[in-house]
Amino acid sequence: MRTQVGIIGAGPAGLVLAHLLARQGIESIVVENRSREYVEARIRAGILEQETAEMLVDTGVGERLQREGIRHDGIYLQWPGTRHHLDFPALCGRSVWVYGQTEVVKDLITERLGAGLPLYFEVSDTSVRDIDSNRPSIGFTDASGAAQTIACDVIVGADGFHGVSRPAIPDALRTTWQRDYPFSWLGILADVPPSTDDLIYAWHPNGFALHSMRSQKLSRLYLQVDPDENLDDWSDDRIWSELATRFEIDGWTLNEGPVLEKLLAPMRSFVSTPMRHGQLFLAGDAAHIVPATGAKGLNLAVADVRLLAKALTAYYDNGSTALLDAYPETALRNVWRKTHFSWWMTTMMHVHGDEFDQQLQLSQLRYVATSEAAARSLAENYTGLPLDEL
Amino acid sequence: MRTQVGIIGAGPAGLVLAHLLARQGIESIVVENRSREYVEARIRAGILEQETAEMLVDTGVGERLQREGIRHDGIYLQWPGTRHHLDFPALCGRSVWVYGQTEVVKDLITERLGAGLPLYFEVSDTSVRDIDSNRPSIGFTDASGAAQTIACDVIVGADGFHGVSRPAIPDALRTTWQRDYPFSWLGILADVPPSTDDLIYAWHPNGFALHSMRSQKLSRLYLQVDPDENLDDWSDDRIWSELATRFEIDGWTLNEGPVLEKLLAPMRSFVSTPMRHGQLFLAGDAAHIVPATGAKGLNLAVADVRLLAKALTAYYDNGSTALLDAYPETALRNVWRKTHFSWWMTTMMHVHGDEFDQQLQLSQLRYVATSEAAARSLAENYTGLPLDEL
Repeated sequence: MRTQVGIIGAGPAGLVLAHLLARQGIESIVVENRSREYVEARIRAGILEQETAEMLVDTGVGERLQREGIRHDGIYLQWPGTRHHLDFPALCGRSVWVYGQTEVVKDLITERLGAGLPLYFEVSDTSVRDIDSNRPSIGFTDASGAAQTIACDVIVGADGFHGVSRPAIPDALRTTWQRDYPFSWLGILADVPPSTDDLIYAWHPNGFALHSMRSQKLSRLYLQVDPDENLDDWSDDRIWSELATRFEIDGWTLNEGPVLEKLLAPMRSFVSTPMRHGQLFLAGDAAHIVPATGAKGLNLAVADVRLLAKALTAYYDNGSTALLDAYPETALRNVWRKTHFSWWMTTMMHVHGDEFDQQLQLSQLRYVATSEAAARSLAENYTGLPLDEL
Repeated sequence: MRTQVGIIGAGPAGLVLAHLLARQGIESIVVENRSREYVEARIRAGILEQETAEMLVDTGVGERLQREGIRHDGIYLQWPGTRHHLDFPALCGRSVWVYGQTEVVKDLITERLGAGLPLYFEVSDTSVRDIDSNRPSIGFTDASGAAQTIACDVIVGADGFHGVSRPAIPDALRTTWQRDYPFSWLGILADVPPSTDDLIYAWHPNGFALHSMRSQKLSRLYLQVDPDENLDDWSDDRIWSELATRFEIDGWTLNEGPVLEKLLAPMRSFVSTPMRHGQLFLAGDAAHIVPATGAKGLNLAVADVRLLAKALTAYYDNGSTALLDAYPETALRNVWRKTHFSWWMTTMMHVHGDEFDQQLQLSQLRYVATSEAAARSLAENYTGLPLDEL
């Protein structure tokens, strides 16, 4: 096989890139080691920054997002005795959309397969070859067991944290930064309408809690727990009781309902550089992981491939490699901005460390609730700083 | 002796309080265990928030401040390759003044002694008595060796971190929070005009450096060093060389000159509550310490006693104890705001921890330099959030 851009991974990064390239008449082939069913059921992030949502709408894959997504104009910050609303449009002129990453992936797969464009699921033995040359290729075994090779101009590794792309860059050339947070999230999906219009980020002496939602009928709720916590120790009753404790505020009640799913998610920050080596470019979780607080993971992956799509379009339009050459630096600046914001939201909201840290957290929360500058700083990061302002 | 308000400590907190009370016709006696010469030579902070400076001018002790103080309309934030100016008036409508704490103290002592109001230096064996009753008193031995007692309505402990006032509150009732930072400041006073118009806060892989000034002719410069550093290991040449390295930027030169003083200063955050017990009220360093980054120590002490002066005025005007009763909470809210800001500036600028932390620091510095909201947040804290907006 031969294509212009070989893409490893059919998550949001790989699929959005393939979609943006197709609109510019640039050929690509996407390979994914999971099945279509698996990829479309994989539950991940659920908050789209305004620029992410607008890009999907503007490029023709936002029809269902506009119909089923829920625009959110703010969040609540809570600490004992206070629940404070931040009004995003008033603060920074932008909003966010609640629309599952899973749904974005479904929309993009439907579009790509509908257009008859190549997307191979259930591949195995994927390898990245000759990235130091002008003739790189991707090797893999297809779902039928046949060995395949894709000769391409450029390979984009969008195959996640555990993928083969990042390790294809020699160890000696890579620098990584990592922070494993000393807490995890215990999350549930509950068959009950959300008890709140906007998400609630709650600081409590027992630990952080987040009231999110997947739709008007399904609630998503999270509790900060120890990293070595066992799900078996958390009955539905215990979870609801602890959620009620952490979200408690006068005049408000948490609606309970059947728990459809339970999960434990570790919290990690991870950045690997360079994001380019030879003809291999990394995007999304292949190059970086952010903790879930602040909902930046999906949006950061999309930002990476928007930069790549622009750079590849310039390359195929007029042969200019300037934007491709700039990608590792341009993308990394955005990576660190979102990494910093995710770390900041995480360390402000999660109870850990000594009592001094807790007093700093409470002082900062009160400050965000009283200072327009501090509130706007949170809002502009949460809704997504425009890429061209970084 | 008998007075209305007995004040322990003739630092900025005690002297400003005595000054503000005198203007309201409220009697006070100030006792200080050091000599006048010592107190007037003690070098401490040098940056006055706008509200601090305005209060001194508005209450008649700002004549020399207006003549000799230097208004600063911003600071520089520096990291390798970039020196970025923050314009405080444009960001938040306020400025700061460079005017030494020592000078404020001299002005207040001159005024008090000139008015013939009681101020006892070189006292010893100071004790705080009967604070649980309506008849508290201060015991001390005066400079001549005579035992003295001041019967008062209220005692204000403004006697610093090592004073007798805080320990007069029973241990069992006190809660303290403390953070000892794993670095110190090595500071010099140099007989050379400052090489900069505004202060430079510089992040460098070797550690933080600060270019401050005491006047148009005297520079104050600081280097982050290890807490166990020995001053003997730092020759003048080594200090100037390291300063030049950390402040290095194209087209700019650091002026060198004779070193008049060298000092090592540890960096600590400390907060003790309650700030009131019975008829004893704590103010300034007696209740809290902030690290020097951000220059909040003096301003926080002044904020405490401005609240106390207002509360005592209301009490003596109409017998209302409402503001006195509210003091521990009102003052503490401001204490934590300034404690948080000092911690934030300190942790953003000082190199410590792993490489991940360093990348977060650099991302935050770039963000402050590009986001109006982030810059304004720094500016409004640095120049001092108005007490009534907290």
